[in-house]
Amino acid sequence: MEVFDKLESEVRSYCRNFPTVFTKSKGSKMWDESGKEYIDFFSGAGALNYGHNDPKMKQKLIEYITDDGITHSLDMASTAKGQFLTKFYEAILNPRNMDYKVMFPGPTGTNTVESALKLARKVTGRTDVISFTNGFHGMTIGSLSVTGNSFKRKGAGIPLHNSVTMPYDNFMDDNYDSLDYLEHFLEGSGSGVAIPAAVILETVQGEGGINAASSEWLQRVEKICKQWDILLIVDDVQAGIGRTGTFFSFEPAGINPDIVCLSKSLSGYGLPLAVTLIRPDLDIWEPGEHNGTFRGNNHAFVTATAALEYWEDANFEAGIKKKSKMVADFLESMVENYPELEGHVKGRGLMIGISSSVEGLAEKVAAEAFSRGLIMETAGPDDEVFKLFPAINIDEDELKAGFEIIEESIKSMVKEPISN
Amino acid sequence: MEVFDKLESEVRSYCRNFPTVFTKSKGSKMWDESGKEYIDFFSGAGALNYGHNDPKMKQKLIEYITDDGITHSLDMASTAKGQFLTKFYEAILNPRNMDYKVMFPGPTGTNTVESALKLARKVTGRTDVISFTNGFHGMTIGSLSVTGNSFKRKGAGIPLHNSVTMPYDNFMDDNYDSLDYLEHFLEGSGSGVAIPAAVILETVQGEGGINAASSEWLQRVEKICKQWDILLIVDDVQAGIGRTGTFFSFEPAGINPDIVCLSKSLSGYGLPLAVTLIRPDLDIWEPGEHNGTFRGNNHAFVTATAALEYWEDANFEAGIKKKSKMVADFLESMVENYPELEGHVKGRGLMIGISSSVEGLAEKVAAEAFSRGLIMETAGPDDEVFKLFPAINIDEDELKAGFEIIEESIKSMVKEPISN
Amino acid sequence: MEVFDKLESEVRSYCRNFPTVFTKSKGSKMWDESGKEYIDFFSGAGALNYGHNDPKMKQKLIEYITDDGITHSLDMASTAKGQFLTKFYEAILNPRNMDYKVMFPGPTGTNTVESALKLARKVTGRTDVISFTNGFHGMTIGSLSVTGNSFKRKGAGIPLHNSVTMPYDNFMDDNYDSLDYLEHFLEGSGSGVAIPAAVILETVQGEGGINAASSEWLQRVEKICKQWDILLIVDDVQAGIGRTGTFFSFEPAGINPDIVCLSKSLSGYGLPLAVTLIRPDLDIWEPGEHNGTFRGNNHAFVTATAALEYWEDANFEAGIKKKSKMVADFLESMVENYPELEGHVKGRGLMIGISSSVEGLAEKVAAEAFSRGLIMETAGPDDEVFKLFPAINIDEDELKAGFEIIEESIKSMVKEPISN
Amino acid sequence: MEVFDKLESEVRSYCRNFPTVFTKSKGSKMWDESGKEYIDFFSGAGALNYGHNDPKMKQKLIEYITDDGITHSLDMASTAKGQFLTKFYEAILNPRNMDYKVMFPGPTGTNTVESALKLARKVTGRTDVISFTNGFHGMTIGSLSVTGNSFKRKGAGIPLHNSVTMPYDNFMDDNYDSLDYLEHFLEGSGSGVAIPAAVILETVQGEGGINAASSEWLQRVEKICKQWDILLIVDDVQAGIGRTGTFFSFEPAGINPDIVCLSKSLSGYGLPLAVTLIRPDLDIWEPGEHNGTFRGNNHAFVTATAALEYWEDANFEAGIKKKSKMVADFLESMVENYPELEGHVKGRGLMIGISSSVEGLAEKVAAEAFSRGLIMETAGPDDEVFKLFPAINIDEDELKAGFEIIEESIKSMVKEPISN
Repeated sequence: MEVFDKLESEVRSYCRNFPTVFTKSKGSKMWDESGKEYIDFFSGAGALNYGHNDPKMKQKLIEYITDDGITHSLDMASTAKGQFLTKFYEAILNPRNMDYKVMFPGPTGTNTVESALKLARKVTGRTDVISFTNGFHGMTIGSLSVTGNSFKRKGAGIPLHNSVTMPYDNFMDDNYDSLDYLEHFLEGSGSGVAIPAAVILETVQGEGGINAASSEWLQRVEKICKQWDILLIVDDVQAGIGRTGTFFSFEPAGINPDIVCLSKSLSGYGLPLAVTLIRPDLDIWEPGEHNGTFRGNNHAFVTATAALEYWEDANFEAGIKKKSKMVADFLESMVENYPELEGHVKGRGLMIGISSSVEGLAEKVAAEAFSRGLIMETAGPDDEVFKLFPAINIDEDELKAGFEIIEESIKSMVKEPISN
Repeated sequence: MEVFDKLESEVRSYCRNFPTVFTKSKGSKMWDESGKEYIDFFSGAGALNYGHNDPKMKQKLIEYITDDGITHSLDMASTAKGQFLTKFYEAILNPRNMDYKVMFPGPTGTNTVESALKLARKVTGRTDVISFTNGFHGMTIGSLSVTGNSFKRKGAGIPLHNSVTMPYDNFMDDNYDSLDYLEHFLEGSGSGVAIPAAVILETVQGEGGINAASSEWLQRVEKICKQWDILLIVDDVQAGIGRTGTFFSFEPAGINPDIVCLSKSLSGYGLPLAVTLIRPDLDIWEPGEHNGTFRGNNHAFVTATAALEYWEDANFEAGIKKKSKMVADFLESMVENYPELEGHVKGRGLMIGISSSVEGLAEKVAAEAFSRGLIMETAGPDDEVFKLFPAINIDEDELKAGFEIIEESIKSMVKEPISN
Repeated sequence: MEVFDKLESEVRSYCRNFPTVFTKSKGSKMWDESGKEYIDFFSGAGALNYGHNDPKMKQKLIEYITDDGITHSLDMASTAKGQFLTKFYEAILNPRNMDYKVMFPGPTGTNTVESALKLARKVTGRTDVISFTNGFHGMTIGSLSVTGNSFKRKGAGIPLHNSVTMPYDNFMDDNYDSLDYLEHFLEGSGSGVAIPAAVILETVQGEGGINAASSEWLQRVEKICKQWDILLIVDDVQAGIGRTGTFFSFEPAGINPDIVCLSKSLSGYGLPLAVTLIRPDLDIWEPGEHNGTFRGNNHAFVTATAALEYWEDANFEAGIKKKSKMVADFLESMVENYPELEGHVKGRGLMIGISSSVEGLAEKVAAEAFSRGLIMETAGPDDEVFKLFPAINIDEDELKAGFEIIEESIKSMVKEPISN
Repeated sequence: MEVFDKLESEVRSYCRNFPTVFTKSKGSKMWDESGKEYIDFFSGAGALNYGHNDPKMKQKLIEYITDDGITHSLDMASTAKGQFLTKFYEAILNPRNMDYKVMFPGPTGTNTVESALKLARKVTGRTDVISFTNGFHGMTIGSLSVTGNSFKRKGAGIPLHNSVTMPYDNFMDDNYDSLDYLEHFLEGSGSGVAIPAAVILETVQGEGGINAASSEWLQRVEKICKQWDILLIVDDVQAGIGRTGTFFSFEPAGINPDIVCLSKSLSGYGLPLAVTLIRPDLDIWEPGEHNGTFRGNNHAFVTATAALEYWEDANFEAGIKKKSKMVADFLESMVENYPELEGHVKGRGLMIGISSSVEGLAEKVAAEAFSRGLIMETAGPDDEVFKLFPAINIDEDELKAGFEIIEESIKSMVKEPISN
């Protein structure tokens, strides 16, 4: 680790929780330089939903590179990009009766969010955007202004503007309806809150603590947006691409966002790629009004096209659902069997975790699990949640092996379980 | 092109100037789907300084992928990242007596700029940043606020704040000294301009019209920054990595920026990668205060490490200089031989072009060249410059072949050359 | 009225509701140029709490002018200012055990609010200020940014920043505790709401619709501010100087604001005057850091000093309370006797009115009353409240005469009262 | 002075330079509580251009108060306001062929500036305003954002936005044409400076150091504004109402601003009053879109109406010009006779002073003059100017008496004059 201490900025973070040098990976396994093996329940914070180095994608990528396919193309037309667009239409949009134009805004999550905010402001001529408590949308100034986390916001070094934070589903306790609050502010002409250009939300908040909004809540947000002619932006960067069981996280709620942000697992292989999906009549961009050097990352187009083929298999979603149930059952049993956790299960699909009321416990469990060979992250404003983000196509055996490590870690932390 | 028209957003831009579907590339050649061959004098707007699909990098990358090397690692330590850091230190920093910490801010140019601005504000506790006319630093709100282009700025949809634009070298005519102006505003306690956190600049402005600042101007900017305790940020995203003849564009001026932004050609292969170089004592980031999903793009680390080896060859810079002279001589001859161009040569190294006073002519020449098999971009606020961005390791024969196409294109546009 | 139509800007407003030219006034009576007499239940929107042209103040003012007393003194020391300061200390601060430094910020309400916001930001080093729904604090950009009214805010022509609006007491219905929201947003490190420099509030919102906060609510706000080290600013411009029954409106709640804003009736005679009261340890202003031409309006000092003498009479407050009860009883009887009003009584002290659910009815009643010789304003985001703002020292006979006109006006608007 | 030290905020400023308690004043004389007499060359920083307690205005005001004329009327129509409007039209606008609507924006300078900025943004739909180095426009956030002084700006406690500062006439030395800069920034589509809603300027900068723009400069600003469809706002709060020799300071330049801000000496008597003059077709305010409690300060209307009568006398302007010449000649002689001042004369009309290169000398001269019975202020970013602001109708004898005190003060400061 010496070279990193000496040469890399203090801003590095995950390497402090997972203090080893990783060298190889395959599926849900990773190996460090000493040869130690890890089960990966982290999945690159949602960027490796299909696991590491998927063999099909790998083969296509090697072939493409070998053949000297175009690597970098800005926003020029390329064969690989054409194939990605076609596959995205055929495997994803068309079967879901979705009609969106695809924008390549730069290859990262914050790029797609910034492009969405810009477009919403251009379309509506309004400046404000409503976001929600504990929302996370990225670290560039535009995205940061709609992000809730106070530590990240303070990092901006300037006051962040043109955004209003409203309470997310269940931000207050059950006696408070967060959308009554939103509606009251929109309706009141003396509320200090202007009708915004857009509402931006995650259906499940990843960084914010694995908070899952109910379908009813999402449907009512959509209805409020329609009523006030506000654009609805779903930031599906972390919850999308199968993480919650369906390609888009909002499919179960049956809502139709005006703009959708995708990145992380879109390339399938962990390569940088992002798209902004735009309701066709909102696609009023001037050519070049938003741009970026790495919009045409063709290696990512190649692996993304291969990844999308998974979704053409009708059984693929069923597999995620089955594993989701396994994980949920396991976590519920942990909460029940280890009351010392003072925990409750949060989340949806394979974006799920245990929130512990014991200060620091979630972090201790995750650290213990790491030493036992499992990679697992914490989340939430106080890192009070340890979260399970296994690959959506993980083997059931690997899943169970991971469960065992987690239980052992919990056990060793809480000392005396009630039963086992 | 049909699939792009149907599915892709109207924001696409380069594909309108280069209306074909590219499929393969090697060195300074590209081929479209019809098999037509192009010489590339565009180099991915500076992201392909070593040409396309460099064989050495290609081999390393295929090996790495074949061996299931880690692909995506956020900011965890990985073997490939460690090798990149080591090589960057040995081949670049150490030989130049430079002492910087390396931050991975997300893989794009705008990410490194946003991280630099944040850090400068955190370090100084000040909010404003001074940038220069015709500067271009990226399209997310933080970077856009220090970008000069009014079309891009308007795209923000909100007023852009915390920045002041000062005249770049030669923004006014020769009778005006742009740094007298800057100094006067800094000195005047009634000038409305606060002492800023940082000054951010490009040594040669790419998007802004291939404007090259003199070494004297850069040295005086550095001196002013020192005097007022202002951080100097050099955005070397486009002018760096050899484009002007040295690895960093500011080497000939002998200045020592406090923060340096690198991206575009850093990976060598056109893969997304960016770093922010930070004077060690300024590295006061808290862990995770800036983050991003694709900070650990290991494929890019692999190719970048291979690319940096070029710089260990003492003859490498000499080769760029030789080609720079060939290009400059050629462009000067064009200006002389084709007075109808009303042109003058601008730029430095292989970041050079002809600014034509004839409205629309630069664009016509570029379009004609494209039809004749050469890819070349225009730049400047009114696209008045056609610019030559060949690979820095281009063959001399390819270079000359490109010259021929350009001259033919000019000739056909201006009709009657004075001499040939 | 012709001269006004021809020469005065369209921005004029009250003259449209009270379309006549006023020429004389005395106590609670006004006369227009045709000689028509009006009872004044409007009191200059709270600037004439002691009625018009109070004889004692008038005499003092004429003497002062006759003697060539200093009229205008910026912030130089003057005899009249010294007398005002002394009287303010002796009659107001000292008897209430209050310890404040007195700042003269310019003679209007928005001036005192702007100075309070500046100081709070300087003292805390924070930028945001929390204000409340339907709050009104003034029309200059700083004050407007903490004002709720969307029509007024839009008039800024720029996005308003550095403020967050929280729900005022009873903004949501009774099932929601508005301070639970505030606390939740302050506590949540992912709430998007930073700890602010200050909370600014009116204890009774005048322009916002005569919304009176409960003492419990005010006490809890104070407690929250203390807990988070947030400054509490009470904007007592409209509710202060006796309007609600005590000199400061917050006396019954027993709270101790860090900063208090006073203006409107401070001079007693309707002359422009404002002060900002500052907890002594917060008085860290540099000399001249805030200034203004009309800080030393000595005519206003003279009348203000005379006005403050009223408060040395122990019976003065009792008189306001008695009239407050008369007004409240009258309004309750109106609501009861005229169910067609669909009204309910709102407010506190002599800052009280009837909110009618019948669209436009409040305005019709006020217009009818005007034609019958009574001046009365509407308030609230939809002008749904007609409000009674009689002088706090009005004769009981005048008060009753006003009641009669109001009842006649209501009657003629709702046609068939249930009983009379 | 004890009561002020004990009770008044530390923000007080002039009373530190003029440390006595003033009690009476008449014409150009003031008396303190000890009976000491002062000649006033300060004129309330431009608010007392007609001297103190002018007998004609005094008589009208006493009559009005005695008759119980309306004192406070918000923006209702009143007899006194009608008379003011009529007189303003007849004595000022009509003889100058000026066509403006009159807005009453609240009674202070910063109120009229805030209203002007709002209206310019509303009319144009643009957000930015261009102001000039060393401009001073007021202390509320909107006005402060177009004010140059860094100490005042910092007092805001928040970053100030939506404004760009350009160099005022002669801000750079004589080799630089400040409007070449402005034009270059407006023309350049990459300059980072958007076409603004308005340009705001003072024709002579008072607080900024008695900088007088040339007529040619003002005319070219007007031309540039016309060319780019930018509104021209002249802030004539300090330079207007006769201070430079004509009612409006811009009359000699022959320009026609779109909006004019007036306050300070408008009431004639030192009472708070301000108006915003609006080109009729720009008067698109909605009723009440800007408001304020003290827009209808009728005492000020009464004295202002009387004051405007001076301008009906053709000799009035000639008198100001004569005294202006006397002052200018005197100051030039001081510069010549006392080279130790290292001074040069700045300004125009009776807004004139000596800028001394000797650090602290201007302040010393002013302090010495005060002790000898003359009130005179310093100005400029470093208080390097002592400025003469006598009443525009001052007696020649008083003027000469003041000159003597100044010369004695200079003499005693520089010790050995070259000649006398």
